[in-house]
Amino acid sequence: MKWWGWGSEQIRKELPHSAATRDYLRAKLGIEEFAPRSEFKLDALRLPESRADQALVARLGAIVGEENCRIDHRERALHALGKSYKDLLRVRQLVLERAPDAVVYPRSEAEVAALLACCRELQAAVVPFGGGTSVVGGVEPEAGSQRVVVTIDLALLNRVLAIDEVSQTATVEAGIFGPELESRLGERGFTLGHYPQSFEFSTLGGWIATRSSGQNSLAYGGIEKLVESLRVVTPQGTVETLHVPRRADGPDVGQMLIGSEGVYGVIVSATVRIRRAPAECDYFMYAFKDFADGLAIARQLVQSGAAPALVRVSDEEETAASLALGSRGGGTGWRNAVRRMARKAIEWRLERLGIRPPAMSTLLIGLEGTLDENRRQRRLVHAALRGASCVNLGRTLGHRWLETRFDLPYLRDELMDNHLLVDTLETATTWNRLFALYAAVREAIHRAAAQEGEPIVVFTHVSHLYRDGASLYFSLLGRQKRADPIGQWWTIKRAAGDAIRAQGAVISHHHGVGQDHRAQTGRAPVEQQMLTQLKATLDPAGMMNPGKLL
Amino acid sequence: MKWWGWGSEQIRKELPHSAATRDYLRAKLGIEEFAPRSEFKLDALRLPESRADQALVARLGAIVGEENCRIDHRERALHALGKSYKDLLRVRQLVLERAPDAVVYPRSEAEVAALLACCRELQAAVVPFGGGTSVVGGVEPEAGSQRVVVTIDLALLNRVLAIDEVSQTATVEAGIFGPELESRLGERGFTLGHYPQSFEFSTLGGWIATRSSGQNSLAYGGIEKLVESLRVVTPQGTVETLHVPRRADGPDVGQMLIGSEGVYGVIVSATVRIRRAPAECDYFMYAFKDFADGLAIARQLVQSGAAPALVRVSDEEETAASLALGSRGGGTGWRNAVRRMARKAIEWRLERLGIRPPAMSTLLIGLEGTLDENRRQRRLVHAALRGASCVNLGRTLGHRWLETRFDLPYLRDELMDNHLLVDTLETATTWNRLFALYAAVREAIHRAAAQEGEPIVVFTHVSHLYRDGASLYFSLLGRQKRADPIGQWWTIKRAAGDAIRAQGAVISHHHGVGQDHRAQTGRAPVEQQMLTQLKATLDPAGMMNPGKLL
Repeated sequence: MKWWGWGSEQIRKELPHSAATRDYLRAKLGIEEFAPRSEFKLDALRLPESRADQALVARLGAIVGEENCRIDHRERALHALGKSYKDLLRVRQLVLERAPDAVVYPRSEAEVAALLACCRELQAAVVPFGGGTSVVGGVEPEAGSQRVVVTIDLALLNRVLAIDEVSQTATVEAGIFGPELESRLGERGFTLGHYPQSFEFSTLGGWIATRSSGQNSLAYGGIEKLVESLRVVTPQGTVETLHVPRRADGPDVGQMLIGSEGVYGVIVSATVRIRRAPAECDYFMYAFKDFADGLAIARQLVQSGAAPALVRVSDEEETAASLALGSRGGGTGWRNAVRRMARKAIEWRLERLGIRPPAMSTLLIGLEGTLDENRRQRRLVHAALRGASCVNLGRTLGHRWLETRFDLPYLRDELMDNHLLVDTLETATTWNRLFALYAAVREAIHRAAAQEGEPIVVFTHVSHLYRDGASLYFSLLGRQKRADPIGQWWTIKRAAGDAIRAQGAVISHHHGVGQDHRAQTGRAPVEQQMLTQLKATLDPAGMMNPGKLL
Repeated sequence: MKWWGWGSEQIRKELPHSAATRDYLRAKLGIEEFAPRSEFKLDALRLPESRADQALVARLGAIVGEENCRIDHRERALHALGKSYKDLLRVRQLVLERAPDAVVYPRSEAEVAALLACCRELQAAVVPFGGGTSVVGGVEPEAGSQRVVVTIDLALLNRVLAIDEVSQTATVEAGIFGPELESRLGERGFTLGHYPQSFEFSTLGGWIATRSSGQNSLAYGGIEKLVESLRVVTPQGTVETLHVPRRADGPDVGQMLIGSEGVYGVIVSATVRIRRAPAECDYFMYAFKDFADGLAIARQLVQSGAAPALVRVSDEEETAASLALGSRGGGTGWRNAVRRMARKAIEWRLERLGIRPPAMSTLLIGLEGTLDENRRQRRLVHAALRGASCVNLGRTLGHRWLETRFDLPYLRDELMDNHLLVDTLETATTWNRLFALYAAVREAIHRAAAQEGEPIVVFTHVSHLYRDGASLYFSLLGRQKRADPIGQWWTIKRAAGDAIRAQGAVISHHHGVGQDHRAQTGRAPVEQQMLTQLKATLDPAGMMNPGKLL
């Protein structure tokens, strides 16, 4: 992962620079020309001096091996921040106020335990680190603290320890990255099915620590449903939950650790529920006149028990944006988005229903299963949609989405080169409050952006659906306020969070709390006490990832 | 509910007293004649004097209304114990060592809060009480404590506060009983789908407090999946979790309260996920040569994604016992268990596969859905079983099970009249360890029973299935050791629990911990600390249901 953006230095994913892209960015944000791609030299990045002295380095090195205790510039830079828009803004300024004083790579659970004991003795703070893709400030050293900060990178704890094909579980070390995990499971014909957008660069431990949810959560469940048991090394000892499918021996201790964001301990391994890998992925799309129509049908689909791997509803703004930004042709990008053969028929149907691309809502359905299962599912979905005012757009857009589903963060780098604000935020609520929440958050963001004096586009989708509600995922694309981009971002972020809380929704559906959401969780005092007392129990010295979550 | 057994005094459910029943009980346990049914007079039951003085009664009465603060003999007797075999043994001795000093019926959440404040001031212990059907000593006053005990019965908090048909949720007070809740939801075309065996006499709050699981958990999930949010009055204030389908704002506070068995506070209401009530219930049964065969197929069914409402596999002992104890005819009960028309063909098929009723394993499948859904499901199930060595027994036994599924606890009273030990216990583990666990627990029970010198029959089923494992439910039917029936029960219970823990399984799949399992949870010290520190946070005076869970 490159230190100043997303993906590796070798891979460059770019906007198509087509007429459609240009027209869209010009019309919405006044971008006339594409700026040249940025280059950043690591040498130019300034970090504070490491406070790790010889003695500390020797102690840590004695535990993990000299080569796995790092205080060099590159390692410290790579572990200084997560990957939020705010993080990339700061790193592009080439001056960071904080960075870990040392980065260590333990090779075993025992080394993790020894590291915690050592750090406790030395009164150092510990930041557990997986893929470092936090977008809520989850991995950066706490501001204003004088403590030495040791970041524990789990990258060497990346083994698949066991696959139990009978119980369909895998016991895996926490530092394994998404692609490696899927590849190892795939060799045996299995999948975890957990695909967050950060999939390529995030780890099992990170997913568990942040209560991550994958794009196919409808079929597989969020990470809290995929974890059967886990091992967490805390300063007070190791917690290992029972390897059982379900238990009624008191409150669920595992659920006290899933989502704990490193403040209770270091997740070192987990047993996860796996499934037979699907034989076929079939993704197709429907067009609706507006978001409300699309949402209503999506809700009915999910509540009817039809459970595709993915149901995703984009609002009018998002459909228009993704057609334009994904198009290699001209116009609005719409005409390239369906197969030439079917285009005429589809256009005729759209017109008849008063649906006007690109300003339409789209419903993406993804099926992942055996051929038989997918055939059955397709029938169910088509039957459910038969009476609705919608048009089947076919597979072209569906499979384009599937192929590019991890690309958005790559494009952010180029958008930032063009001085654009690019951010996302998400929440969840019940179906009956979903549209009101959607409207309120959009309004709050637009009002805040106007206050900052720069134009913004907000587009939205629903991609994690439940019988009782859904998540809302907002993408923000705005013109950067060059004088104070971080201030601009905070103004918008806070306004969105306030609107979310005012609607009784949750501050995060799957990004976590980190530093950025701490002030806006809206926890009642007694709830806050429950979480802080758990911390006091497991981490009495307060050394674990201070300044996050609580 | 009658104070000395199960069900109301008006309803008598009896064994068929048929030739099959008699032969079975004679052969297995040496029971020659049915004893006359017992009668117990409440006046004859001796309880310790209530320690509630005038001042306390006045204080409590001022909160809940005089008529809702009870210290009479009947109320104290009804709230003195749960409904385990051990409890019924004790109550039949007509002397109880402990009973609550007062029983109060709050009418609102505010009254619950006021009661806790009052009890805290008066240093009284509080026992929250739903239906009182605990089989693990969850509702009886703590032994050896001098504190006054106030039992808070939630029976008047039984309103359905809201039904949200769009989000398919219902907000319901915790004291509502199963049938009332289903009836209220049914009026609107919905169901919660939660049917524990205690369904008729247990409450929503009790289900949540004990992490209950219903007979159709395969389709609906255990109670922890059905609860969207809840309100719990603790001595430190009320916790209300967010009404959202999913959240990633830290560890799941709701899951810290589900299964808390009254030791953290009083669950006063919850929002639960509901569904359209099924149009049709279709239950049918297959015969297998042995339990291992039946389990293998059940596992494949669940892992294939076919999710009927119920899959239940009985071992050979259970099949034989339920055929005999449920039969109104002679022989082994087997010939009455299938439709006369089909009998010849079925017998021929069984013989061909070497399956010898009644010593066979049976697989019960229950479908609950629309006619279309059930047709689809039936096809899936039949397809999955086509290649297996099994015989379709049809619907007779399936629907007999459905009609009598809440009856077993009623029959216990009559079996106890015949001086039989009648108990059940349950656990869960992953599929790869299931059969070993089954064998180990059976062996432990048989060894312990032999040590106590009385014969015992152990029969087993698997009825809560997951992709990664299943529960095991053991029913025990033995001859009572008349000299010390409670000692006999403890010997067997402890042996079973030790075997469960030695196999790495969980001490309870859905009964909870209460008093009886406290010594055998096998919690690591750090896990125990997490739970006790949460208690210290929410209940610093240690007044909530002392002596349970922790």
